[in-house]
Amino acid sequence: MRAIDWTGKSLRLLDQTKLPNTIVWVECTSYQEVGLAIRQMIVRGAPAIGAAAAYGMVLAGQACGNNNALACQKELTVAAAELRATRPTAVNLAWAIGRMLRVASGLAGIGLAKRLEQEADLIAAEDVITNRAIGRFGAELVPNHGRILTHCNAGALATVGYGTALGVIRAAVEQGKQVEVFADETRPYLQGSRLTTFELMQDGIPVTLITDNMAGWLMAKGGADLVIVGADRVARNGDVANKIGTYSLAVLAREHGIPFYVACPLSTLDLSLNTGQEIIIEEREASEVTHVGGTRLAPEGARVWNPAFDVTPQHLLTAIITEKGVIHPPFTPALSLLKSQ
Amino acid sequence: MRAIDWTGKSLRLLDQTKLPNTIVWVECTSYQEVGLAIRQMIVRGAPAIGAAAAYGMVLAGQACGNNNALACQKELTVAAAELRATRPTAVNLAWAIGRMLRVASGLAGIGLAKRLEQEADLIAAEDVITNRAIGRFGAELVPNHGRILTHCNAGALATVGYGTALGVIRAAVEQGKQVEVFADETRPYLQGSRLTTFELMQDGIPVTLITDNMAGWLMAKGGADLVIVGADRVARNGDVANKIGTYSLAVLAREHGIPFYVACPLSTLDLSLNTGQEIIIEEREASEVTHVGGTRLAPEGARVWNPAFDVTPQHLLTAIITEKGVIHPPFTPALSLLKSQ
Repeated sequence: MRAIDWTGKSLRLLDQTKLPNTIVWVECTSYQEVGLAIRQMIVRGAPAIGAAAAYGMVLAGQACGNNNALACQKELTVAAAELRATRPTAVNLAWAIGRMLRVASGLAGIGLAKRLEQEADLIAAEDVITNRAIGRFGAELVPNHGRILTHCNAGALATVGYGTALGVIRAAVEQGKQVEVFADETRPYLQGSRLTTFELMQDGIPVTLITDNMAGWLMAKGGADLVIVGADRVARNGDVANKIGTYSLAVLAREHGIPFYVACPLSTLDLSLNTGQEIIIEEREASEVTHVGGTRLAPEGARVWNPAFDVTPQHLLTAIITEKGVIHPPFTPALSLLKSQ
Repeated sequence: MRAIDWTGKSLRLLDQTKLPNTIVWVECTSYQEVGLAIRQMIVRGAPAIGAAAAYGMVLAGQACGNNNALACQKELTVAAAELRATRPTAVNLAWAIGRMLRVASGLAGIGLAKRLEQEADLIAAEDVITNRAIGRFGAELVPNHGRILTHCNAGALATVGYGTALGVIRAAVEQGKQVEVFADETRPYLQGSRLTTFELMQDGIPVTLITDNMAGWLMAKGGADLVIVGADRVARNGDVANKIGTYSLAVLAREHGIPFYVACPLSTLDLSLNTGQEIIIEEREASEVTHVGGTRLAPEGARVWNPAFDVTPQHLLTAIITEKGVIHPPFTPALSLLKSQ
């Protein structure tokens, strides 16, 4: 399953707001359209929006046409700022855009467009390789017959392919392990029910859907052996911003003595932040909470608080699974070392 | 706001599956119809289904017509069993039905019908008085400017009137305290978004809606001073069965040093159970999780686990607020004493 498809002239995105009921592809022919798709969560997931933004930069580069290098730089800087502003929490967005800007330096015309395309293709290809490496390392932590609780969707749909948290699960299954997955539905956007169950059912991996508030009771009943989630930004000390509800899960896992793993590429690591307290948490519109499909769930005018992410302090993590290995606490030295390698 | 209305010949129930979008009353003219309304959650909330079942027993008594006492007993026993079986977790149902059976003993005809009606009216009237007493005791625990997190709906709609957890909030407001309420939306049935915000907005009490998985992050941000919830069954040792998600909240409250209160009438206490492990937890159909309104949220055939309640162990409770006072741990002696008084 691949939700990002570069045609050479446009970026086709599998519309994740319509899954699992409808398979619709959205075609973006400008960086502005890519930005809108990221904002509207047509594409979502930290690694996926990084790759999508990279292709957005390719479209911006192609749009420069025959302008000189200085004019191109200016246009790319504008595109970069607009794409970066679409969603504030996941660092992969800024990481991919920064990488694209660096390779574009001093170029113009067809040379610029080709170089940008090459780099975006590299980012996309690396992401899948990275996820397979995360999967291999993470699979060692999954016991045979393990019952794994996951939150949101850190799968193929959240990345260019294979997935991070779901990549670990896929790798465990490829190793011949039997697993059972519990997927939090993940309100308000329902990535768990709409995307994670969809992905895992397509792969034939047993999955049971629960509402977010059932996770604690599942653990209390002895129904979960480990928790694996993805990440949107990891601070230098190991604090993790991830989909809202991750923090509650980590507290519950600790209460029940269940290992809590974060699976993410090192591109999710933001060494510029000392702790998770510095991470900007996106707050989204009330309608995500008050409406599902065409159904209004709350009285008109109901006040809503809708943070899209939360921060899990590093002391609640058992380990962080990266493409260069599994990191146990203390996280600071290991994260800094791996990132610099 | 009153969601239960006895006409003398029928029980009118405000259809809570349709709130807050539509105000529809359902009229039940037989105990079977009352049973169906309880099963379908047209009426829900432990005290409310107790009162509804009591009126169901009145309808069963009226239907006995001119049968002799022995035949009436038989018919009432059948009605009682059917009504009791509608929902297994809330003990108020069995409690109210038991009370109705006791007063019916040896009666027939118009005398039976009158006695049953008198007792059901008493159960309903007592419920409101009880809730006001719970409110008075509980309000002492609410600080001025307190920010209160609640789960599900333990309000007027869950009772005959005033509410238990929301009764405490109402009483605090009546005492002149300023409060702010955070309402968990409470998946899958959305009692928080549909009912609690509706009730509190009608009363002009400030309320902010969140999804269930935001509660931990709200606490971590210092946004909640206390948690108050209702209960469906309380065991002798103080373990509390309540709406799914209550247990997670209690763990999170403990982690953040936030008091966790359960507000319920003593009719919710089941001294026949030593601990909460003996409480039967109702599991409901998958469609409550996979569908909202006409919208399918998960792939067809997705496996679902849908427990309607969970059990919070007594050690996570700060206090239980009853109509006879606030009980602190150890709960066993105090609960037994109050129940016997």
